[in-house]
Amino acid sequence: MVTLGVDYYPEHWDKSLWREDAERMKQAGVSIIRIGEFAWSVLEPEEGRFEFEWLDETVRIFSDAGIDIIIGTPTNCPPRWLYEKYPEAIWTDRSGKKIALGIRGHRCYSSPVVRERSELLIRKLCERYKDEPHVIGWQTDNELEASQCCCELCNDRFRKRLKAKYGSIDKLNDLWGMNVWSGSYSSFEQIDPPYGTYNIGWYNPSYMLEWERFGKELAADFSNFQARIIRSICKDTIITTNTWFCEYPPDFYDLFRELDVASYDNYPVSRLPDDPDALYTHAFHLDLIRGIKNKNFWIMEQLAGPAGCWSPPSAAPRKGMIKGYGMQAVAHGADKVIFFRWRSASKGAEMFWFGLLDHSNRDTRRLGEFTQLANELRSLSIPEDSIIKNDTALLYSPDCDTALYLQKQSYGLHYYDQLKGCHDGITSLGKGCDIVSPETDLSSYKTVIAPALFMCSDKVKQSLRDFVKNGGTLVITPRSFIKNTENTCPMEPVPCGIDDVSGCIVSEFEPLGYNRVKVNIDGNEYDAEKWSESLELSSDAEVSALGEFTSGTLEGETFLTCNKFGKGQCWYVGAVGRRDFYKALMKKIYDANGTPYITDLPRNVELTVRENNDQSFTFIFNNNEHPETFVLNGKTIELSAFECKVIKEGK
Amino acid sequence: MVTLGVDYYPEHWDKSLWREDAERMKQAGVSIIRIGEFAWSVLEPEEGRFEFEWLDETVRIFSDAGIDIIIGTPTNCPPRWLYEKYPEAIWTDRSGKKIALGIRGHRCYSSPVVRERSELLIRKLCERYKDEPHVIGWQTDNELEASQCCCELCNDRFRKRLKAKYGSIDKLNDLWGMNVWSGSYSSFEQIDPPYGTYNIGWYNPSYMLEWERFGKELAADFSNFQARIIRSICKDTIITTNTWFCEYPPDFYDLFRELDVASYDNYPVSRLPDDPDALYTHAFHLDLIRGIKNKNFWIMEQLAGPAGCWSPPSAAPRKGMIKGYGMQAVAHGADKVIFFRWRSASKGAEMFWFGLLDHSNRDTRRLGEFTQLANELRSLSIPEDSIIKNDTALLYSPDCDTALYLQKQSYGLHYYDQLKGCHDGITSLGKGCDIVSPETDLSSYKTVIAPALFMCSDKVKQSLRDFVKNGGTLVITPRSFIKNTENTCPMEPVPCGIDDVSGCIVSEFEPLGYNRVKVNIDGNEYDAEKWSESLELSSDAEVSALGEFTSGTLEGETFLTCNKFGKGQCWYVGAVGRRDFYKALMKKIYDANGTPYITDLPRNVELTVRENNDQSFTFIFNNNEHPETFVLNGKTIELSAFECKVIKEGK
Amino acid sequence: MVTLGVDYYPEHWDKSLWREDAERMKQAGVSIIRIGEFAWSVLEPEEGRFEFEWLDETVRIFSDAGIDIIIGTPTNCPPRWLYEKYPEAIWTDRSGKKIALGIRGHRCYSSPVVRERSELLIRKLCERYKDEPHVIGWQTDNELEASQCCCELCNDRFRKRLKAKYGSIDKLNDLWGMNVWSGSYSSFEQIDPPYGTYNIGWYNPSYMLEWERFGKELAADFSNFQARIIRSICKDTIITTNTWFCEYPPDFYDLFRELDVASYDNYPVSRLPDDPDALYTHAFHLDLIRGIKNKNFWIMEQLAGPAGCWSPPSAAPRKGMIKGYGMQAVAHGADKVIFFRWRSASKGAEMFWFGLLDHSNRDTRRLGEFTQLANELRSLSIPEDSIIKNDTALLYSPDCDTALYLQKQSYGLHYYDQLKGCHDGITSLGKGCDIVSPETDLSSYKTVIAPALFMCSDKVKQSLRDFVKNGGTLVITPRSFIKNTENTCPMEPVPCGIDDVSGCIVSEFEPLGYNRVKVNIDGNEYDAEKWSESLELSSDAEVSALGEFTSGTLEGETFLTCNKFGKGQCWYVGAVGRRDFYKALMKKIYDANGTPYITDLPRNVELTVRENNDQSFTFIFNNNEHPETFVLNGKTIELSAFECKVIKEGK
Repeated sequence: MVTLGVDYYPEHWDKSLWREDAERMKQAGVSIIRIGEFAWSVLEPEEGRFEFEWLDETVRIFSDAGIDIIIGTPTNCPPRWLYEKYPEAIWTDRSGKKIALGIRGHRCYSSPVVRERSELLIRKLCERYKDEPHVIGWQTDNELEASQCCCELCNDRFRKRLKAKYGSIDKLNDLWGMNVWSGSYSSFEQIDPPYGTYNIGWYNPSYMLEWERFGKELAADFSNFQARIIRSICKDTIITTNTWFCEYPPDFYDLFRELDVASYDNYPVSRLPDDPDALYTHAFHLDLIRGIKNKNFWIMEQLAGPAGCWSPPSAAPRKGMIKGYGMQAVAHGADKVIFFRWRSASKGAEMFWFGLLDHSNRDTRRLGEFTQLANELRSLSIPEDSIIKNDTALLYSPDCDTALYLQKQSYGLHYYDQLKGCHDGITSLGKGCDIVSPETDLSSYKTVIAPALFMCSDKVKQSLRDFVKNGGTLVITPRSFIKNTENTCPMEPVPCGIDDVSGCIVSEFEPLGYNRVKVNIDGNEYDAEKWSESLELSSDAEVSALGEFTSGTLEGETFLTCNKFGKGQCWYVGAVGRRDFYKALMKKIYDANGTPYITDLPRNVELTVRENNDQSFTFIFNNNEHPETFVLNGKTIELSAFECKVIKEGK
Repeated sequence: MVTLGVDYYPEHWDKSLWREDAERMKQAGVSIIRIGEFAWSVLEPEEGRFEFEWLDETVRIFSDAGIDIIIGTPTNCPPRWLYEKYPEAIWTDRSGKKIALGIRGHRCYSSPVVRERSELLIRKLCERYKDEPHVIGWQTDNELEASQCCCELCNDRFRKRLKAKYGSIDKLNDLWGMNVWSGSYSSFEQIDPPYGTYNIGWYNPSYMLEWERFGKELAADFSNFQARIIRSICKDTIITTNTWFCEYPPDFYDLFRELDVASYDNYPVSRLPDDPDALYTHAFHLDLIRGIKNKNFWIMEQLAGPAGCWSPPSAAPRKGMIKGYGMQAVAHGADKVIFFRWRSASKGAEMFWFGLLDHSNRDTRRLGEFTQLANELRSLSIPEDSIIKNDTALLYSPDCDTALYLQKQSYGLHYYDQLKGCHDGITSLGKGCDIVSPETDLSSYKTVIAPALFMCSDKVKQSLRDFVKNGGTLVITPRSFIKNTENTCPMEPVPCGIDDVSGCIVSEFEPLGYNRVKVNIDGNEYDAEKWSESLELSSDAEVSALGEFTSGTLEGETFLTCNKFGKGQCWYVGAVGRRDFYKALMKKIYDANGTPYITDLPRNVELTVRENNDQSFTFIFNNNEHPETFVLNGKTIELSAFECKVIKEGK
Repeated sequence: MVTLGVDYYPEHWDKSLWREDAERMKQAGVSIIRIGEFAWSVLEPEEGRFEFEWLDETVRIFSDAGIDIIIGTPTNCPPRWLYEKYPEAIWTDRSGKKIALGIRGHRCYSSPVVRERSELLIRKLCERYKDEPHVIGWQTDNELEASQCCCELCNDRFRKRLKAKYGSIDKLNDLWGMNVWSGSYSSFEQIDPPYGTYNIGWYNPSYMLEWERFGKELAADFSNFQARIIRSICKDTIITTNTWFCEYPPDFYDLFRELDVASYDNYPVSRLPDDPDALYTHAFHLDLIRGIKNKNFWIMEQLAGPAGCWSPPSAAPRKGMIKGYGMQAVAHGADKVIFFRWRSASKGAEMFWFGLLDHSNRDTRRLGEFTQLANELRSLSIPEDSIIKNDTALLYSPDCDTALYLQKQSYGLHYYDQLKGCHDGITSLGKGCDIVSPETDLSSYKTVIAPALFMCSDKVKQSLRDFVKNGGTLVITPRSFIKNTENTCPMEPVPCGIDDVSGCIVSEFEPLGYNRVKVNIDGNEYDAEKWSESLELSSDAEVSALGEFTSGTLEGETFLTCNKFGKGQCWYVGAVGRRDFYKALMKKIYDANGTPYITDLPRNVELTVRENNDQSFTFIFNNNEHPETFVLNGKTIELSAFECKVIKEGK
């Protein structure tokens, strides 16, 4: 059953409040809490002196209240005594210096002392709570980011990794093109982290990508190291970690490979953007998270109030948002939605990151909405085996994300732009969409979109070729199939190594930046921006030109083609558009391959279905600050601002 | 008698110019000069070798000309030989490194060698000039800012201060909430300055506030150390220091406590802002400076020309500004107005910070205005015992200034915004206003405004409660009474600990940032921005709702209340407005408590009164670049651009 | 004969491509290639082990194809093994630390090991290829910038230079005004590089200017050191270096003094600015480069495609640009135009800095335009002794460039603004213009303009005085004649030391920044911005007031004068205008001194003439993205976008 929870910090509050808090939570509909993920200094106030009594009592109180518990391993923040005694445990930044303490997340993933002390504490926690029936799961660390630590230990691991991968330094020099600007290494020992504060565009991109890949691996390794300890003691527990979309994201697929469930910290905007074209539904991120393990996931932190810390508090969640965004998460596959946090901290840097309760501890409107959501979920009884099935998939690639971060292709063009654009086009047609790794088995899909698949292995190219050959529809967009996996450019026409499938190549391109040009699809004009390409159709393919530029330097040139290949088809879209462009594009593609869709949904209303063998749950969510009324399958649907209506049906 | 002066740097000019300069100054109406505050390297060119002859001659020449002299202690800039020999004398920045020399203000306030060498030089200066009748006063250092030095000496003082204040590290951990993110200290020795370059929002706010308080204390301590030396030798002299509104301001009240008079470096804008709503009169800063010691003050540096150094020269002062801004300072309580500087430097970084004379040394329009001002002041003969009395006070709190710098509450919302808004509302009604410390005895005021009094001691709360109880009118605005003095949030409704006086609490809030909503007062609508609050009226108070939001997420909610409490009243204003809002608000409050005001002043015209037992001087200043004509008390007043008319009346 | 070339990197490509590349180049019209300037790590993979075989083969292949070769000394990028073994070879930044490797240009010009290893390699290269007939020239290093290295070696040279120049530290202190802020040095040993990250405006400007002059000298010295080695072995070769307009430019005159020809890396904009007033022709930079040695020059790198590396790729060159910009360079005196680069790199940081060929190696539109240009040049046969003669000169001063970089005079006002404004005014009248050093013999010119000649030696003042006395026309603009060569302000009216020639002085000034005022010339109004000056006419000069401000704080004041002095005239222009202002101004001046010009050219069309004793070549270039048709000397001229028409005539 899908349930709600809150994040709770007993160590921040006087003991006398705990029981009252548990009682109020129960009243409000809390089924689960997450605790402990920053509590190392309270659990081990000095080296080797452990204090578990407060945690024992917390577990007892909440267990008594019938509330389940997830314990976070507190490895994000080793205590000061550890850093003081073992300064090698601290992150080294790009100037080669240990970072100053004072905030959080300062530990080096490679540090043996961090590993040893973490292991000892985790073992003790597991041993102590392994038989508590209400302790149902564990979270490793907190919001793990790809390592950026530049210490000698990390550097040593990095060099070993490169030695193992390339064998000889000459091969590395050759594959990376290190002789450009006389940068060739004489030995692996000359390789360093990217010290210095240059614009990253100045570094060798192959080197930088390997460095970032290494940082992602380290993050996953640090989590897996913990997961193995937990698993060895708490045999049947559920292990996860909470992730989010940060500047240096982990490789989501790798991070969760050995874990049981993916968890996401979900902070949708509390103030809608002024430009209606700028809005995308938070569905995109939720779908991406669901795709990590291709199954339902957890929300470990969910927006509960204005959020402020390093910047001023954001807007307060509008009326309906607490409830609506919570249900939207469920609509996209969340089985638990845990709100951050129960009560706003009265001390520390995050005191203006508001929880469900304000500092005053009085009931709030926000807590009221949470309670309504809990009641609705209780009455709906959504089973955890109800899942989401889609016929369309978008490919998300951690490598492409990083490679395009390292080498921006046009002013204002980010890796996510085209993914979000396509996702928006699909969503606006009342359809769900999976977002999956390019390595995924694609055979269950009818349509697969490769937006900005900048870098691609031969294996994935073959998988996509087979997918089309066997009847699938592949959609290629600008800046896809540009690089090989060493982050260099093959001497081939774009799309490199797959132009037999596309039936066309890019003959000329124009990085548009913030400038716009017009394109034409079926007699309608749309704005394009950021990147544009004219396509040259292959004479020995069954390819058709289906749209052209109607202004700009490429005026009159073809930007849209469809090629018949095997039993399937391959579209090439040589422009980056805006919302209406992607809706029109997806319609045209679905019409061509016979995929059904809904045309009469209002803008920003999304529709998803969870189902198991017995039941289906249709979620209709209004992502607008105004009410919407419309007809769906002959029925009039009325949604208030941010309302998510759920239609439960038997089979 | 109120008189004029200039800042003069004899050491920058050939001796042959000194006598001619003194003569021209006398002609122009200069009564006083400030000298010496950057002259250490000229006074002591190498360790222990002192050269006072040039200063002797300067004192002789200006004394002969009948011009008084203030000597600045040159401790802002110890010479290079001192830093070379004693590098510990140099500031340590947040990376833990000594800053590079090359500019000014590099000394560490804690450094024993800085103290020793400063004392020696100050003693010699005092001994040498103590009997000079024209040397009437001393300025300590120059523009002292709160210390940001992170050296071991400062750190050691910081730790000792904390030990003395908190006694045990556990108490400090508890009061500051250091266990958040496992940040608890095991000992005072683990406490460091805020090393690193994080966004300050990441640090513990209680820690950061103490660090900033410490830096302010160090600055005051460095000035007091000097003042005591001077006082011990020059018994009857006047001691001051010159302050301004800088990024890390000192605690003004603390800085001047042991000094005789407050001095201010007054650089009003030389180009009026384009947005007429953005203009505030410089009266705000002048009133704040007068409030430091609740008495008349000095201007130690006054705008004399386009100002440029680290940035290009500002606009040239418009016609009338030199004279008008000078008189405005007098109108707000300045007894001396010393212009920076006599002649523009021909060398060094400040060469484009123009004085009254340009590099060419020819007479300028600016010098002409200065001369006119001197003549007018001479004919007015304004006595120094003529002072300003107001019935309205604004509370300015150094702690709140810092706490809101550390934790911004909304995009675009600064601590001064609401103070300036209220001050502008009062000024626009032809009234003067005192700006005083919350610790001040408030019994002489009728109306006291607490804008953004973010942090407040129990003692001040009691003083405000008594003030209202005894008949006073208190006005509370957003983000007042949020924190206790440890910079943490009590578990109480806002306004914390004073909601009995307000008769209402904040039930919901919305940080608006740059977005605007409408509020209604007496049927008129006004824009509100940056922060908004809906108020819940207490059922057991005599409180009335007097205004509500008419748009935005809080539409329909009350934002303005007035509560009867004791013999007085307390207003709660749950919105941050613009100029017309504050004018309407202050009118409403004055109407309610029977305070007289003037309604028909043109925008940006201000009216102040200085009086003693015998005479009164009414100053009417036109802060506009255009002339204004209006009727005041039946008389037509005509003011040219930036004109300040003075009406002298006997009693 | 004027010919075309490309930059080529054989070391980036498989050997098997070289012969094919040479063949394709020949077909396309390539006459010359530049190679080798980043190839140190390939030429000397480890200390003392040299590998020249690949270069031998390249020289052989291209010689066989009849293509000439310029070899670049690869000293911009010593290999990693050198830095590893001799870390003192690395640049030290302003924090006093060696910069991180990873990009390029890290060598310290002063480092003995850099000099020794460079000399050894250059000697070997020269010895090896000195007799190759197709190796016709050498380029020293690559895009040498003024040194910013702050290492002890550089500091030591800097101190020695100052000692030699000033003799005693007291003299330096006095001339620089170091006693301001007690900054006097006790000895030359106290002088350091400008460590720290202050806003440069805080440093002493005299010191900073010397530091920058020193950095420029070091760059020139590093090039000359190489040129002397080359010259000693390859007696009759041509030696150059490639320069550009970078943040820390070298002193162009000094850099090329000992070299044979100036070379320029020419990257005109590939997307025209939106504001038509913002466009200046690239002619300005080309004319400045030609003025370095007052003779024809080379383009060592010419725009060949979208350029991206540290930032995303720029816009693609529009149709016509490759050909048009190439011919424009010839029109302004280029004898060789070498395009950067043949094929886009498939590896390394510059992979998206596109060459004539894309990564795919397929023929492109851009290569097509190059080929057309080559064909046209071949048929025109423009001799290298055809040169450009003009009657108007603009003075460009490296010292002024630096001094105004160090002390900006108004928001938005850059040194180049007035130079470009005047150049645009001249160009719009169909005239060419020389841009020369103030030290140049000016006797061949009729009109000389001194825009923003901020700093000026007495010798140059005398030369300008003589120029006017002998009948020349001198034009002075704002911020000229402000400083002496120590970068301090003399105690004289502006224009300092030349007001006898101008017949007027600046009586008041206003830094306008981005604000605009109006000025009047002959009844027409023009916008002025950034800086404005009112002029006071000398009563004992034959000077006339010819224009005044018609708005702003200087309304009614004179801004434009013309004085008769000796046989010539001197104009003072007290305003900074926009394009139409400078066109009107230059017309008025030319009318006054009887200089012919063309009035009916469309905007952004430029006309230049190259001629020798036998022939003349008139170039008419359309700098617009649209076609232009107009009548010139009775003939209708039609130009497509970016077309450069060449009219060849015998004499």
